[in-house]
Amino acid sequence: MKFKNTPENTLERLIIYLKVLEALEKKNVNFISSEDLAKSCGVNSAQLRKDLSFVGSLGTKGVGYSIKSLKYSLKNFLGRAQEWNLILGGISPLGIFLLQDKTLQKEGFYFLAAFDTKEENIGKIYNGISVYSLDQLSYVVNAIKVDIGVIATEEEPEIFLNAFVEQGVKAILNLSKVPFFVKNSEIKIENFSFSMALTKLSYFLKE
Amino acid sequence: MKFKNTPENTLERLIIYLKVLEALEKKNVNFISSEDLAKSCGVNSAQLRKDLSFVGSLGTKGVGYSIKSLKYSLKNFLGRAQEWNLILGGISPLGIFLLQDKTLQKEGFYFLAAFDTKEENIGKIYNGISVYSLDQLSYVVNAIKVDIGVIATEEEPEIFLNAFVEQGVKAILNLSKVPFFVKNSEIKIENFSFSMALTKLSYFLKE
Repeated sequence: MKFKNTPENTLERLIIYLKVLEALEKKNVNFISSEDLAKSCGVNSAQLRKDLSFVGSLGTKGVGYSIKSLKYSLKNFLGRAQEWNLILGGISPLGIFLLQDKTLQKEGFYFLAAFDTKEENIGKIYNGISVYSLDQLSYVVNAIKVDIGVIATEEEPEIFLNAFVEQGVKAILNLSKVPFFVKNSEIKIENFSFSMALTKLSYFLKE
Repeated sequence: MKFKNTPENTLERLIIYLKVLEALEKKNVNFISSEDLAKSCGVNSAQLRKDLSFVGSLGTKGVGYSIKSLKYSLKNFLGRAQEWNLILGGISPLGIFLLQDKTLQKEGFYFLAAFDTKEENIGKIYNGISVYSLDQLSYVVNAIKVDIGVIATEEEPEIFLNAFVEQGVKAILNLSKVPFFVKNSEIKIENFSFSMALTKLSYFLKE
């Protein structure tokens, strides 16, 4: 619904601006002109200014943007000023990698529980996160606030999708090879696979 | 350059159509109407037909699309009818996951070599793929045809980007948190991070 306000392409660029600002901040840069920031983000400065008007952030003439302040505005706008609770669907190698990845926590994304359908995986613990049977999803969803469900299995990913949606999970990151779509505008699914990303490159390379 | 012909959004949808068709084929479906295919892909059938006109594929009235034939056309169009050679930059947990992931090979993406800057990682072998020092990149690029460079490290990813570009790698999948852009239209960079995907969801969830 909120996507009606911010076009998807604009949203994607705003996320890029945030990431580039975070990298600049690490290099102890304090201010940047809209031209330089635009260049680092692969857009022109008119586009940058137009996009940032959604956030309500305006640079100062002659000084440019304060990196700290623009980053703060973007994080607020993008919902990154708060923490989010994640659950994982599928104890695949990718799923295990995600549970063990500490960098997502630093960005405010916390896996609280993992689910699988295979008996031998239930009860395992990765990085302090327990693996439950998918049958137990409703109990967990009742006990903790779940914000985002991450699907990381190639084996029947739709079983996890259906269970997550049924239990009221509103935001889903689908990392399986099969993209999913729902008509319900109350639910947002992000589809990504390495294979899809590589196919954009194979198209580019194809002679 | 080829992106001038196919808009980026169209390209992304064509990749989704291919993925959905592959999933349908696994379920032994032979034909599908444009309405049903569009629904599975989260678009309307007018959009689907318009997108497929780039590929030159037309369904048959009353029968719809042959899944096998449309998949074949899309794979050809997207450069997925051939195999591609990949190199990895960065022996991170994500990098090691990718080297060990067998599903990409099934799709025609083969990692042939990996590179790192840390002494202790040089000479290691993952899934039959050797880790070389980044200093040795030019030798490897001269010895084998490298199509795609994948950057999978958070530690100074720009070192790998610069080395790849310098050695003539034309297509780069950047999985680090910092998005990269180049002005050179002969080079295509795809930026993806789990953090960027999750931020699209946090924006959606934010109240």
